[in-house]
Amino acid sequence: MSNTRSFLSARETAQSIAAESLTAVEAVSVCLATIAARDPVVGAWQVLDRDKVLTAARAYDRDASLSGKSLPLGGVPIAVKDNLDTADLPTAYGSSIYDNHQPMADASCVALARRAGAIVMGKTVTTEFAYYRPGRTTNPHNSAHTPGGSSQGSAAAVASGMVPLAMGTQTAGSVIRPAAYCGIVGFKPSWGLIPRQGVKILSDWLDTVGVFARNVEDVAFFAAGLTGRNVLRPDGSGGPFEVAVLRPPYPAEPEPEAIAALDRAAEALRAAGHGVSDLPTPHSLQNLPRLQRLVMAYDMEKALAYERRVYESSLSSILKTYLDEGKGISPRAYDSAMAATRDVQRDIDSVFGGADVILAPPAAGEAPVGLHATGDPAFNRIWSQLQLPCINVPTSLGPNGLPVGTQLIARFGQDALLLAAALALEQALAAS
Amino acid sequence: MSNTRSFLSARETAQSIAAESLTAVEAVSVCLATIAARDPVVGAWQVLDRDKVLTAARAYDRDASLSGKSLPLGGVPIAVKDNLDTADLPTAYGSSIYDNHQPMADASCVALARRAGAIVMGKTVTTEFAYYRPGRTTNPHNSAHTPGGSSQGSAAAVASGMVPLAMGTQTAGSVIRPAAYCGIVGFKPSWGLIPRQGVKILSDWLDTVGVFARNVEDVAFFAAGLTGRNVLRPDGSGGPFEVAVLRPPYPAEPEPEAIAALDRAAEALRAAGHGVSDLPTPHSLQNLPRLQRLVMAYDMEKALAYERRVYESSLSSILKTYLDEGKGISPRAYDSAMAATRDVQRDIDSVFGGADVILAPPAAGEAPVGLHATGDPAFNRIWSQLQLPCINVPTSLGPNGLPVGTQLIARFGQDALLLAAALALEQALAAS
Repeated sequence: MSNTRSFLSARETAQSIAAESLTAVEAVSVCLATIAARDPVVGAWQVLDRDKVLTAARAYDRDASLSGKSLPLGGVPIAVKDNLDTADLPTAYGSSIYDNHQPMADASCVALARRAGAIVMGKTVTTEFAYYRPGRTTNPHNSAHTPGGSSQGSAAAVASGMVPLAMGTQTAGSVIRPAAYCGIVGFKPSWGLIPRQGVKILSDWLDTVGVFARNVEDVAFFAAGLTGRNVLRPDGSGGPFEVAVLRPPYPAEPEPEAIAALDRAAEALRAAGHGVSDLPTPHSLQNLPRLQRLVMAYDMEKALAYERRVYESSLSSILKTYLDEGKGISPRAYDSAMAATRDVQRDIDSVFGGADVILAPPAAGEAPVGLHATGDPAFNRIWSQLQLPCINVPTSLGPNGLPVGTQLIARFGQDALLLAAALALEQALAAS
Repeated sequence: MSNTRSFLSARETAQSIAAESLTAVEAVSVCLATIAARDPVVGAWQVLDRDKVLTAARAYDRDASLSGKSLPLGGVPIAVKDNLDTADLPTAYGSSIYDNHQPMADASCVALARRAGAIVMGKTVTTEFAYYRPGRTTNPHNSAHTPGGSSQGSAAAVASGMVPLAMGTQTAGSVIRPAAYCGIVGFKPSWGLIPRQGVKILSDWLDTVGVFARNVEDVAFFAAGLTGRNVLRPDGSGGPFEVAVLRPPYPAEPEPEAIAALDRAAEALRAAGHGVSDLPTPHSLQNLPRLQRLVMAYDMEKALAYERRVYESSLSSILKTYLDEGKGISPRAYDSAMAATRDVQRDIDSVFGGADVILAPPAAGEAPVGLHATGDPAFNRIWSQLQLPCINVPTSLGPNGLPVGTQLIARFGQDALLLAAALALEQALAAS
């Protein structure tokens, strides 16, 4: 994306700060200037406190200079979705119920980022409780289009160069879909890779903390720094990979640009020497979008029991309708959905076959026009329900000049392999 | 236990209130009187606000009288462990860091209990962040002995008749062990049966909300009311059950009274017509206590990253030592522990064989003397790591006249069967 080329990557930023050729104050100042220029239209930020950011950056520069130590994410500015608690910034979860709510503690993922030296720039807009009612964020590529949801502010902030890294969460498609619509890399790890204390949980089964960056190496750099897992950072030597390209029946009708992007990604990988084959969507996966929707509705209705009991009039009608759907689901239907899901998880090798990764559309196509909705997570539900790691890699442009991506999915726990394959795809696309 | 016989059960309380032969105000007044009499020695309560309780009970009585409707847990007093958020009562998680901390919302399990008509009496003492450093609670049977932990206030409140029902959480053995030491029923459901939004999470994998009562039917009544799962309430018609009695090698050396209780339970079940056989601890389970300890340390170190970063001097040395242990565990060791765990989960039928439930010691024996520690969760780690439902059933008395229990364990998701088998054990013990 030409509008992001001029910015330092997260790795370059960290390296320059470690080498003392850049200060954290300078790094956040560039971000603040970009925010000042672009946020009036993009609207990515829920909470931004320039003084706090500059104070934190100065403290980092002073401590690093005194200790002579550099940290994995030392001095790198990050954005935090506003459904993750922060001890020094209010956290509203996208709901007026929590206007000016100030948590006592950082969510553990935020604390881990800070421990690794990251500078929290502020909180980014989330849809209401990370469900469907949009916040005010627009797509950085065309403000008449949605940036996707629910991690809309995080995706838009990264896509517009306001910050190199951001955190989000996914229950249905809230990391992968906005990453695809905004033309950036979004990585939803295997369930549990990033701890969830301090996340406003909607579903114990589904909710996953994910990360955004402008390219695969940066997203891996962030995930590695957060989790202490250096193995997540691909060194470019992986592969060749066996790639299965998901073919119909799809969970929803894709636009032509989604299939064109998928074909382009497959072609580029094949040209780069990877093994590529077609995988008609296996029967065992075809029911999963329905099961994911059912499990999410059932779980959310319980997770938000307090808000509904006490503040029902402050909930949007789209949320209340979904909570009603959740309330109508019987425990028996829920248990049977979960049992079917676990069966597919147990037999996941029969889905992947000889493939290392599956290549699939991350969304039906380009970001839809309009800010009244955030698009459909139909293409994300299967992988969320199976708790599998997924990543969006920007692939091409659609008929409106908006980004279109490709989603890669790996087996549970194979996050390092997924990131290595995503880097291979990114490189293959650059060469194609 | 003779000291609890005189109190109405939770079911009788709900029935009497529904029949208008008792008011919620009267029900909570009996609890408040018992608390006044016993809590000076037992020390179960962290937060107790008589006026708030009476106001809530009056509101329930008025609403029930106006609407003519009765709710599943209508008017029944419950206790809530102080690691579960409450919107109207401070929540300190057992740590001075959170003195006077007032959450904005109820944990979803608390909201579900209130939605079902329960009256929250107050918050009960937890160990520091539900780990090992004890609070001030004593064992209701002998105040020189620990009540166990971490849900020590909840278990002691129920055991001393201060409240018929209480909520707790288990990461290693924090529901089953205090239930055993206090001579009550403690039920840790399958992972995820009770939602966790608003729990101070230590481990996404391990943490489970559980419930306490004085007998199996009451614990099932509470779990059913909370979750809307009436199937959890046994009707006494289940069985005969196939019961496998866990035999050595045990994860720790049991006291003679633990084995005597196990044998007594097995004998009573056999006499009642259930199938009883011995199960030498399978090889596949023998490593799990070590893996559970490793996973818990690794996860806790990340979950409490904020508290360690900002308030290190306010953490106990026993907690800091464990967080250090967690910090020293490599992601590779963690992943390998989790992979081994999932292997055992996948092949759980080979552990249970033809058995419906496993019978095992819930603890090494009676509650240890002294209030400086809460006893050893060695006998709980296997089942926590496997996310399996477990229950403690009071079985006999040990050499010091303190309660000794038996633990029953079922396959994942077989919570209803577990409760039915526990009722069968309770009845068999009463008849033996």
